[in-house]
Amino acid sequence: MKSLVELIAHKRDGGDLGAADIERLIAAFLAGELADYQMSALCMAIYFRGMSASETAALTMAMLHSGSVVDLGHVDRPKVDKHSTGGVGDKVSICLAPLVAACGVAVPMISGRGLGHTGGTLDKLEAIPGFKVDLPIDDFRRIVNDVGTAMIGQTADLAPADRRIYALRDVTATVESIPLIVASILSKKLAEGIDALVLDVKAGRGAFMKNVDQARALATALCDVGRAAGKRVSALITDMEAPLGRTVGNALETREAIAMLRGEAPEDLCECTLALGCEMLALAGMADGARERLEQAIDSGSAARVFERMIEAQGGDPRVVDDPDRLPAASCQVELTSDRDGTIAAIDALEVGLAAVAMGAGRTRADQPIDPRVGIELCAVVGEAIEEGQPLAILHLGRKEDAEEPAIRVRRAITIDPGLAPSETLRKVVLERLEA
Amino acid sequence: MKSLVELIAHKRDGGDLGAADIERLIAAFLAGELADYQMSALCMAIYFRGMSASETAALTMAMLHSGSVVDLGHVDRPKVDKHSTGGVGDKVSICLAPLVAACGVAVPMISGRGLGHTGGTLDKLEAIPGFKVDLPIDDFRRIVNDVGTAMIGQTADLAPADRRIYALRDVTATVESIPLIVASILSKKLAEGIDALVLDVKAGRGAFMKNVDQARALATALCDVGRAAGKRVSALITDMEAPLGRTVGNALETREAIAMLRGEAPEDLCECTLALGCEMLALAGMADGARERLEQAIDSGSAARVFERMIEAQGGDPRVVDDPDRLPAASCQVELTSDRDGTIAAIDALEVGLAAVAMGAGRTRADQPIDPRVGIELCAVVGEAIEEGQPLAILHLGRKEDAEEPAIRVRRAITIDPGLAPSETLRKVVLERLEA
Repeated sequence: MKSLVELIAHKRDGGDLGAADIERLIAAFLAGELADYQMSALCMAIYFRGMSASETAALTMAMLHSGSVVDLGHVDRPKVDKHSTGGVGDKVSICLAPLVAACGVAVPMISGRGLGHTGGTLDKLEAIPGFKVDLPIDDFRRIVNDVGTAMIGQTADLAPADRRIYALRDVTATVESIPLIVASILSKKLAEGIDALVLDVKAGRGAFMKNVDQARALATALCDVGRAAGKRVSALITDMEAPLGRTVGNALETREAIAMLRGEAPEDLCECTLALGCEMLALAGMADGARERLEQAIDSGSAARVFERMIEAQGGDPRVVDDPDRLPAASCQVELTSDRDGTIAAIDALEVGLAAVAMGAGRTRADQPIDPRVGIELCAVVGEAIEEGQPLAILHLGRKEDAEEPAIRVRRAITIDPGLAPSETLRKVVLERLEA
Repeated sequence: MKSLVELIAHKRDGGDLGAADIERLIAAFLAGELADYQMSALCMAIYFRGMSASETAALTMAMLHSGSVVDLGHVDRPKVDKHSTGGVGDKVSICLAPLVAACGVAVPMISGRGLGHTGGTLDKLEAIPGFKVDLPIDDFRRIVNDVGTAMIGQTADLAPADRRIYALRDVTATVESIPLIVASILSKKLAEGIDALVLDVKAGRGAFMKNVDQARALATALCDVGRAAGKRVSALITDMEAPLGRTVGNALETREAIAMLRGEAPEDLCECTLALGCEMLALAGMADGARERLEQAIDSGSAARVFERMIEAQGGDPRVVDDPDRLPAASCQVELTSDRDGTIAAIDALEVGLAAVAMGAGRTRADQPIDPRVGIELCAVVGEAIEEGQPLAILHLGRKEDAEEPAIRVRRAITIDPGLAPSETLRKVVLERLEA
């Protein structure tokens, strides 16, 4: 039997690790027999050498079984979740989960916080007064059954190997590895006790994957490994060149997600949410008329009612759904206006995301506090005409004096082309669909 | 300024690290700001991406200056050392240092212990009753000046970064990287306060570098970086397909090194020692008639006298030089005889080395005790004729019952070809010389 160091050398030399080897490595890591410095060297070797589909599946399962799996056996509806690889302005989970739950699918959602230029669902939900994301698993199980959906944070006993390995990868330049990303995402998602999973793999400047080819490679690996684990999985590749919707920042985004549930969302957010909703219904065996069902759940108010019930069950103030002014708001709004006539040719999602982080909406370190009120509201989006003097964006922040730097960044992020004709069609949000 | 993680990512992506970046990384590592798991990930990235000559030189200097450099300013002779990359039966340092010192060159030698299948000079010296290798640096400085040579082990304040990094590399499958090997070797050797260095880069089955191309790549990198550090450096590539000389094991090898000083060494050991001695004298400005000087130091007994004085200065019993039977000896000798007539076609140095380790002559872990008495004596070497029933090798060990397994390994290591004519020429030991 190879020693643990020999297993690292085997991967370093381009060899395949067997499932038993991978289980040994993860078990030894959790037992303290494989040290952090050995795991980080292994991750770097995996970064360079990659992993086959079967290695990645074995790693995913070893990380999944490093902890417990939520038992949702008492929920008799199909259980389907959605995972996004992260973007700027991506508040889809917040409206999608209640929307799909309103159509009769259980959506058990365990989410993360924002780190870097992308936001996190938990931070956005915490903008709702009183809302708790750190519920015990038993409460989560109960709310999923009673309400149809619940959204909480990672707990200590779900995929603990992933948490420890991710913390190492984050500080050893080994994040950007498809097999490691796949195992990290799926070990956590499979721990939710789901039947099926829809993946929203973002592509573009504001995403982790900068182009569609990279996104397709990740989406394919996620689908392959998810299916190898016995789950129904499908994936959409969606555009993240520009922010999704018209808001970036926690309370602002939650407000926009509520607007989606009230039928008042920007077109791109609406399209992205409905497309993902159709995928989730299809995986739940409700493909026929899925879009109409979703639209009906919005029009009838049933999706908004599910969200209210979920907020209430998680300790928050459900009145924010009917009265979004109850969400916290920044005391100061600074309007940026256009200095020319033209058409919005591009809005750099990465730059907008970084501007929002610098304003206090996000973190550069995991232990940083955030301000739920601050953020950026876009008054014009890609393809729209703009005239000199018209508003481009509104900065929401605590003090006018702090507007200077974000104003420079947001202006720099927005490209106005005087010679370009306004677009008559929607921004194309869904770029590709990987067959389920 | 890039963060430490960004520097790891930069190397991971194939970028060059500047000297200032490398100094920051090493300083941060020593200060505990760059964690072990980050250093091991960086080492793995270096394993895959390599390092340019200037990066390797910067790493060497940063590791050198992580500790102190021995001040040999009081020694007015040229100060030249030799370093071998390690092999089986390689006892050259023990005879070479006094031999070259007897010719008027100071040889300050800081050596290592055996690990894996290769032996270590310190272990061999400790076979001499009373000999101490853990002397304070001030004693080392005094003995080098008084006797012309001293041989001690690494101290805590010489290149401490190397010691910590090497300990990590050893358990993270990042040993086999030329820039890391070069920086490790040279940071320690430059800390000796030398003017010049001769490198014996071994090539073959019993060496770290399995073929001459690999050995040449390492030798070239060592010479380039040594010269970039302002030292005179030359390198020989020497054969390590078969063990050097006729003994493997600590007391046996020290005895053979003493035989060399008495003009009684096997031809291959003699050739290797004299060739390296000529290189050392040449770097000390004594190229003319170097070989004759060395032979004269042997014939006159002056080299043996230097060794006696060094042993005495280091607390050992100098009478072993005139009376090698004072060295510890195993109580039991088991002779292996040939089962056929033929010619010795090959002796696998790796297999012989591993057999010696298994007998207790070496270590598989750094904290293992060794037995100085055990070892293997080869009765016939490559190219020699052998007849059925003649002795092939003698195992020196504590108990006859323990001979079975090493006997199998040693027999397996020796290839006898019935159809091959004996060789009329010496084994070619020096395969290549890299110009100084």
